[in-house]
Amino acid sequence: MCMREQLTIFLPENRIDELISIGKEKTIESSAYFIREGEIPTKIAFVISGLFRYVYIKDNGEEFTKGILTENNFLSSYSAMILKHPSHFFIEALETSKVLEINWLTYMLLVEKDIFWVKFLLKLVEKGYMIKEKRERDLLLLDAETRYKNFLTEFPGMEQRIKQGIVASYLGIQPETLSRIRKRMLF
Amino acid sequence: MCMREQLTIFLPENRIDELISIGKEKTIESSAYFIREGEIPTKIAFVISGLFRYVYIKDNGEEFTKGILTENNFLSSYSAMILKHPSHFFIEALETSKVLEINWLTYMLLVEKDIFWVKFLLKLVEKGYMIKEKRERDLLLLDAETRYKNFLTEFPGMEQRIKQGIVASYLGIQPETLSRIRKRMLF
Repeated sequence: MCMREQLTIFLPENRIDELISIGKEKTIESSAYFIREGEIPTKIAFVISGLFRYVYIKDNGEEFTKGILTENNFLSSYSAMILKHPSHFFIEALETSKVLEINWLTYMLLVEKDIFWVKFLLKLVEKGYMIKEKRERDLLLLDAETRYKNFLTEFPGMEQRIKQGIVASYLGIQPETLSRIRKRMLF
Repeated sequence: MCMREQLTIFLPENRIDELISIGKEKTIESSAYFIREGEIPTKIAFVISGLFRYVYIKDNGEEFTKGILTENNFLSSYSAMILKHPSHFFIEALETSKVLEINWLTYMLLVEKDIFWVKFLLKLVEKGYMIKEKRERDLLLLDAETRYKNFLTEFPGMEQRIKQGIVASYLGIQPETLSRIRKRMLF
């Protein structure tokens, strides 16, 4: 599926042209960062293909994967970007990925002149908000095994694409705990 | 300070009238719920005075206070409301409180006819998003004592207004852990 077709999920034809006209197609190599911790973000991106994660790296080197993003999602370090503060997390490509990169100030020009792009942005922020709320709830209310089962349902085939250590850091558990859960589920 | 003055933080004069004209002033008694878990939310509210919390109650009765909201904040169970799903958490008054209650469908009528109210809603959702992102980060990256110190700074005087058990459930720790931290901080 090409980018134009993918964007029809979100946008009518004429709006797709508008978005593409302000964006740049880019390839991001596996393990490279779209946004780094400490950097003031000035861009968002639509993921055409590939895989990303949002990750906090603690002072002791421990990682917490706060989000996993596949194709057809928008990447951003949103709070930091709108506050013009340094990002608290990294956005890392887990596979060589293609994105449509959009400069935030350029997007703001669209927002200023057309209510359509305000409503579109509202939808994106609402989606981000809902994902965060569900994630908070899952981490608080579900046990690790249930979280792992939900992960397998939500991201089918992802087990082959992501290292176990990253899956564990997404589930908020130690890699050893994940191994135990996986063994238990085999029987 | 009266409601009208409070709303000048967010809105110009003529917009305040518009919002007040679609809202209803209500008193919510201490310990009563503005929204209950399991209920499909159809309203938001501006807190004129008083104090609220968003709380998850687990099957075993354990509570997790996901947010504390003082005057000059908007209350909502937003994800559930826009998805028309049952709320996963309660919104509970911790003191007898006054709110301006606004029906969501009525607000949507404003949104339909005027870009101002779309932009205002975007600001509210962005604020909610930023609070959630900060909260996630604090829970992940800071130790309990630092979280408690930040709580005291962020909510000055709140120690006298909220029971210690609720403070602990906001910090994600056991009440005994909070007691130990408080004792340590006295010396």
